[in-house]
Amino acid sequence: MSDLINDFRVYREKMNKKILASDNKVMKRIYNIDTNTYMDGALSSKTKEMLGLVASMVLRCDDCVKYHLEQCYELKVSTPEMMEIFAVANIVGGTIVIPHTRRALEYWEDLEKS
Amino acid sequence: MSDLINDFRVYREKMNKKILASDNKVMKRIYNIDTNTYMDGALSSKTKEMLGLVASMVLRCDDCVKYHLEQCYELKVSTPEMMEIFAVANIVGGTIVIPHTRRALEYWEDLEKS
Amino acid sequence: MSDLINDFRVYREKMNKKILASDNKVMKRIYNIDTNTYMDGALSSKTKEMLGLVASMVLRCDDCVKYHLEQCYELKVSTPEMMEIFAVANIVGGTIVIPHTRRALEYWEDLEKS
Amino acid sequence: MSDLINDFRVYREKMNKKILASDNKVMKRIYNIDTNTYMDGALSSKTKEMLGLVASMVLRCDDCVKYHLEQCYELKVSTPEMMEIFAVANIVGGTIVIPHTRRALEYWEDLEKS
Amino acid sequence: MSDLINDFRVYREKMNKKILASDNKVMKRIYNIDTNTYMDGALSSKTKEMLGLVASMVLRCDDCVKYHLEQCYELKVSTPEMMEIFAVANIVGGTIVIPHTRRALEYWEDLEKS
Amino acid sequence: MSDLINDFRVYREKMNKKILASDNKVMKRIYNIDTNTYMDGALSSKTKEMLGLVASMVLRCDDCVKYHLEQCYELKVSTPEMMEIFAVANIVGGTIVIPHTRRALEYWEDLEKS
Repeated sequence: MSDLINDFRVYREKMNKKILASDNKVMKRIYNIDTNTYMDGALSSKTKEMLGLVASMVLRCDDCVKYHLEQCYELKVSTPEMMEIFAVANIVGGTIVIPHTRRALEYWEDLEKS
Repeated sequence: MSDLINDFRVYREKMNKKILASDNKVMKRIYNIDTNTYMDGALSSKTKEMLGLVASMVLRCDDCVKYHLEQCYELKVSTPEMMEIFAVANIVGGTIVIPHTRRALEYWEDLEKS
Repeated sequence: MSDLINDFRVYREKMNKKILASDNKVMKRIYNIDTNTYMDGALSSKTKEMLGLVASMVLRCDDCVKYHLEQCYELKVSTPEMMEIFAVANIVGGTIVIPHTRRALEYWEDLEKS
Repeated sequence: MSDLINDFRVYREKMNKKILASDNKVMKRIYNIDTNTYMDGALSSKTKEMLGLVASMVLRCDDCVKYHLEQCYELKVSTPEMMEIFAVANIVGGTIVIPHTRRALEYWEDLEKS
Repeated sequence: MSDLINDFRVYREKMNKKILASDNKVMKRIYNIDTNTYMDGALSSKTKEMLGLVASMVLRCDDCVKYHLEQCYELKVSTPEMMEIFAVANIVGGTIVIPHTRRALEYWEDLEKS
Repeated sequence: MSDLINDFRVYREKMNKKILASDNKVMKRIYNIDTNTYMDGALSSKTKEMLGLVASMVLRCDDCVKYHLEQCYELKVSTPEMMEIFAVANIVGGTIVIPHTRRALEYWEDLEKS
């Protein structure tokens, strides 16, 4: 596993635990719904993760992008499919999405190597 | 066809024509790529329109939402599928997406009645 | 009650009902948490509504602003306090917040007259 | 003068007066600096208004766009120049800027007719 | 003091000095109003810093968040109060605020240890 | 050349190559138009790069800012002119632009030293 992947996962897990340990009900419930949102339903989990990814890209949240890239990877999104998600994000969100696309592609390649 | 749908389409078409008539090459090419982005490829046109819709919702662009709702309607996205797209947009983008969801659902219902 | 207030309330209530009637669990739970977020806790409901208002202003969501203005009005936020919330929103979010401040002040004055 | 122009100006002036009458010092000073920002300096007033316009477009604030369109019109920005400002806004900000470009062009044409 | 806190403070102070030394009047006045905005008035300084914090969180500006966390810490905001500010930011701004909440909590814990 | 400049350029070039090598037509064409947008036309290349810079600043994309700073530097934008671009970005976009201004000024100074 690359350092990029490992660092993201370790920090994310450590801080998520602290947020949940703080015992704020609203935060707990947001985490809870978040998990539920991407489960199979009328749309497949794979489609929903792609939706979550494109939303994260246009809102330019690198850590959210990494998380959804991981889910997409687990759910067998192919690289040509991934490039088309990137394309939608870049046309809708403009060239300010390009730097996030560079980082997303780097992370995606690390996932493929892992 | 409802006034809501008709007004959107008429104004959009009229002004798009004027933008293209202005003979600015960059604007023309952006319009051109925009059309290409959503064509069948590694991902189906239907999936891409759903991606375009969720991106437009989290960026809170009502007119973009209307356009992608029309495309999704043409491509047979079902109402339960649509509600799940709305759900992803609302969880990722937060409660500021709710007013746009109200308007999106109104437009969606008008499309269904038309 | 002014038309501005009435139109906002009627449309908001009508469409919220439709969203909840659609039976999408994620949407229902987001609405549910949303209500809970602003209840008295470590911070008073009044403080939280002011936080919700300033967040809505910098994110430039007019309908969200209207909703929080109503809650602030119910919870006895004074006009000088309101102007200071507007000031924080405008300094943090910049002059793009000014047009939303114009509409917010108009709504606030309508609430005071009602 | 078109209704579009007139309505914008009347409402803007009326509400700006109310904001300034509220006697909030921070708001007053923001208005004050705002005026100063666009005065001739190292860059000409015309260039700065173009900068203000493109910033307003990518942030998708229609009323801010209208205001800077008026200033650009006064300062003799030509229509081909305006189309190139629109092009920069659309490439940087993406297709979500298109609906705002439609409204901007409509306003620009009204200014030219006035 | 943690490295996280120290690095933020040192860089912020160094670059703020350079911005002010550049002798641009608009920048100087923005800095000036910024300080004034959060002073005691109709609302307490503590409330205003909480407003500044939630605005910075939903706009997802980590450095702005750090600055307001420091001010909130000085003004005796408690950890349960802080968690409720985080909750408002996350419900209004959505799950894209979560990564910023992770970093905010880390910084808050460092402030408490310092 | 400073590490800051070198690291940005190396990573940007490496990842841009990978994005273009992926053979996604939409991404290729976006890159293509992007280059065309800033060429001399009704407005000079220098003015357009300033427009691209201010748009990147208010959208708070540090890597986009770095790129346009480089172009502005090549095109002989002076430091007082640059400070006025920063001023427009900060008044329109608010104090959340300040941390990006700190980083922009640091990069600008590195360009001047190089």
